[in-house]
Amino acid sequence: MRLRHNPNAPSFLEAHPEIVEPNPENYRTNWKSLFNNDNPLHIEVGTGKGQFITGMALANPEINYIGIELFESVMMKACEKALDAGSPANLRLLRVDGSDLEKFFAKNDVDRLYLNFSDPWPKTRHAKRRLTHEGFLKLYENVLVDNGEVHFKTDNRGLFEYSLISMTDYGMKLNLVSLDLHDDNPEGNIMTEYEEKFSAKGQPIYRVEAQFITKK
Amino acid sequence: MRLRHNPNAPSFLEAHPEIVEPNPENYRTNWKSLFNNDNPLHIEVGTGKGQFITGMALANPEINYIGIELFESVMMKACEKALDAGSPANLRLLRVDGSDLEKFFAKNDVDRLYLNFSDPWPKTRHAKRRLTHEGFLKLYENVLVDNGEVHFKTDNRGLFEYSLISMTDYGMKLNLVSLDLHDDNPEGNIMTEYEEKFSAKGQPIYRVEAQFITKK
Ligand SMILES: C[S@@+](CC[C@H](N)C(=O)[O-])C[C@H]1O[C@@H](n2cnc3c(N)ncnc32)[C@H](O)[C@@H]1O
Ligand SMILES: C[S@@+](CC[C@H](N)C(=O)[O-])C[C@H]1O[C@@H](n2cnc3c(N)ncnc32)[C@H](O)[C@@H]1O
Repeated sequence: MRLRHNPNAPSFLEAHPEIVEPNPENYRTNWKSLFNNDNPLHIEVGTGKGQFITGMALANPEINYIGIELFESVMMKACEKALDAGSPANLRLLRVDGSDLEKFFAKNDVDRLYLNFSDPWPKTRHAKRRLTHEGFLKLYENVLVDNGEVHFKTDNRGLFEYSLISMTDYGMKLNLVSLDLHDDNPEGNIMTEYEEKFSAKGQPIYRVEAQFITKK
Repeated sequence: MRLRHNPNAPSFLEAHPEIVEPNPENYRTNWKSLFNNDNPLHIEVGTGKGQFITGMALANPEINYIGIELFESVMMKACEKALDAGSPANLRLLRVDGSDLEKFFAKNDVDRLYLNFSDPWPKTRHAKRRLTHEGFLKLYENVLVDNGEVHFKTDNRGLFEYSLISMTDYGMKLNLVSLDLHDDNPEGNIMTEYEEKFSAKGQPIYRVEAQFITKK
């Protein structure tokens, strides 16, 4: 998601360190000290305007959430959403690049990883930029617990078809596949901004839960 | 597919041994002798009224085809279709149960296996009857060449979701996934009877090409 550059975004984000963590590298291997509890940590890469991660944080206070977004202007919207929600103690946002995940998280830091409506990068020559490309899957495996899961939803058929192949080629196990999430009426589904938009148009939403299989 | 029992079906099938092979067990390990050539053999389990297998035989004379169907009354329709097509030399039909595949085919006899619009058996307690259940996948692996492929299409979302999980759990590799076959406009697609019916209603047709990975 690109928004018009907002010159106020950097100072806005800096002014809210209780939501946007300014020094995430300091918590690598030690996120429990930031949240001050032993709860599991679930992260989302490509958070956008933050409706999902804020909704999840409110719905599941016993889980810690971190939303990661590349663009300051977009992250500012997510930050405003978190403020409106009363700055949940179990929610943080990081204005960083998902490609740098290992700078901020070490093996076993993360209990689950969410991807929602990731940019499709439909051209084959851009395949490496897809957040389900094997290069990214490797990163996710390196920060997740053993047998950790990636939960991915999207309206984009081409990206979903690609992701099923990429994930299983990587050796991930598919625990759940839905080719029409909303028809399945899943309990506890928190809609993202893109999900609201595309499902309102009647497009099916695809969803997969895939798991890394740790060999001992 | 069930049709009203047709008392003429058995004698009709018997009267056409050039299409409906009456002694398939005799050709186990030796189907090339029946077709009198070295061409690859592709089989379909659950042929129904035969539009797919007859169309494939006409379109690809350099491949041998065998259609397998359980019910005599249904097979009679497929036999009539083959007769109307001029009894292609590269086509045979077997009125047998797919569960008995190994009685008629040995390892390496089959180069590719097709499943089209297989019965969904939606109840969990009937999962073993689904033609993509691991019990059937084991049979297919036992008659296919090394690294042989299963090509499956269906309109049934639940069965397709199940099949993706079942196939990858079995260790099969997904070479192609399409969640809207007709939108992809695939060259050389031969429609089945069910495919014509369901795609005319605007339902997406799902398709997967999955491959057994032979460990050496
Ligand atoms: C299409 S939007 C979807 C936003 C939101 N998840 C939703 O479903 O409404 C994808 C978001 O991912 C962000 N993004 C893309 N690549 C990223 C990366 N490497 N690291 C962090 N964020 C990224 C984009 O800036 C954009 O905001
Ligand atoms: C839903 S119909 C689809 C027919 C056709 N493939 C099509 O797409 O139009 C499924 C067919 O598979 C056959 N079938 C089901 N189980 C079978 C088995 N174990 N062996 C052989 N045929 C079977 C049924 O009799 C039926 O004709």
